Amino acid sequence: MTDTIFGRIIRGEVPCHRVYEDDRVLAFLDVGPLSEGHTLVIPKEPAPTMDALSDESAAALGRVLPRLCRAVMKATGCEAYNILQNNRPGAHQAVFHVHFHVIPRFDISGPGAGLGIAWKATTLDDPKALSARVAGAMK
Amino acid sequence: MTDTIFGRIIRGEVPCHRVYEDDRVLAFLDVGPLSEGHTLVIPKEPAPTMDALSDESAAALGRVLPRLCRAVMKATGCEAYNILQNNRPGAHQAVFHVHFHVIPRFDISGPGAGLGIAWKATTLDDPKALSARVAGAMK
Repeated sequence: MTDTIFGRIIRGEVPCHRVYEDDRVLAFLDVGPLSEGHTLVIPKEPAPTMDALSDESAAALGRVLPRLCRAVMKATGCEAYNILQNNRPGAHQAVFHVHFHVIPRFDISGPGAGLGIAWKATTLDDPKALSARVAGAMK
Repeated sequence: MTDTIFGRIIRGEVPCHRVYEDDRVLAFLDVGPLSEGHTLVIPKEPAPTMDALSDESAAALGRVLPRLCRAVMKATGCEAYNILQNNRPGAHQAVFHVHFHVIPRFDISGPGAGLGIAWKATTLDDPKALSARVAGAMK
């Protein structure tokens, strides 16, 4: 497993602005925030992408999200926010250790507003076959 | 709690292209996909936003993500993908029942490529005070 800046943060070799830690997860401020309160929550398990993470670490990450979101809302006054988790460079991943971004969205223009989203919806093409393929792969 | 289309899907009153279901969560194809294999995973608990969701449902959602991501990868051949969860209209939420999007990212231009992300990073302003506020709100 390749080491990353997040591995070094977990081991205490690199400082972070920590907001939460337990046996399985660590949360800290993003050093290049999209908005005030932009926070990362990561598993201590060094998986590069979600598809490589254990169910137990993924459950621990999920479990902390409601509490972390409430804390970010309380600390920043934000109401709206996005949770984003990117996998592989084609999908905007830059550090190859699983991380969820919690990104407050503020009703302002320009830098500091939060995550910019471009949503170009298409239509389903043969959804019966596709859903059967995904369902089959879940087994 | 306001009813939503997802509540009606959970109760079987509206059909969906289901790919996975257990006691706590349901996953199905998004009917307006950003890319082939765009899948939603929702808790059966009818919380509108992540900050209102129980820890148990959030853990169950987290736990299914690795397996669901592997299944979407296998069924579509995608390598890169984004996981997105939007909270409140200002952050692009349209159905007021918690849902994670799993969105394959394909290296093509135009519709069907996946999620478009605009990333305008800023810098941290007094991170010591901010991290202390968030950490304090976690307790």
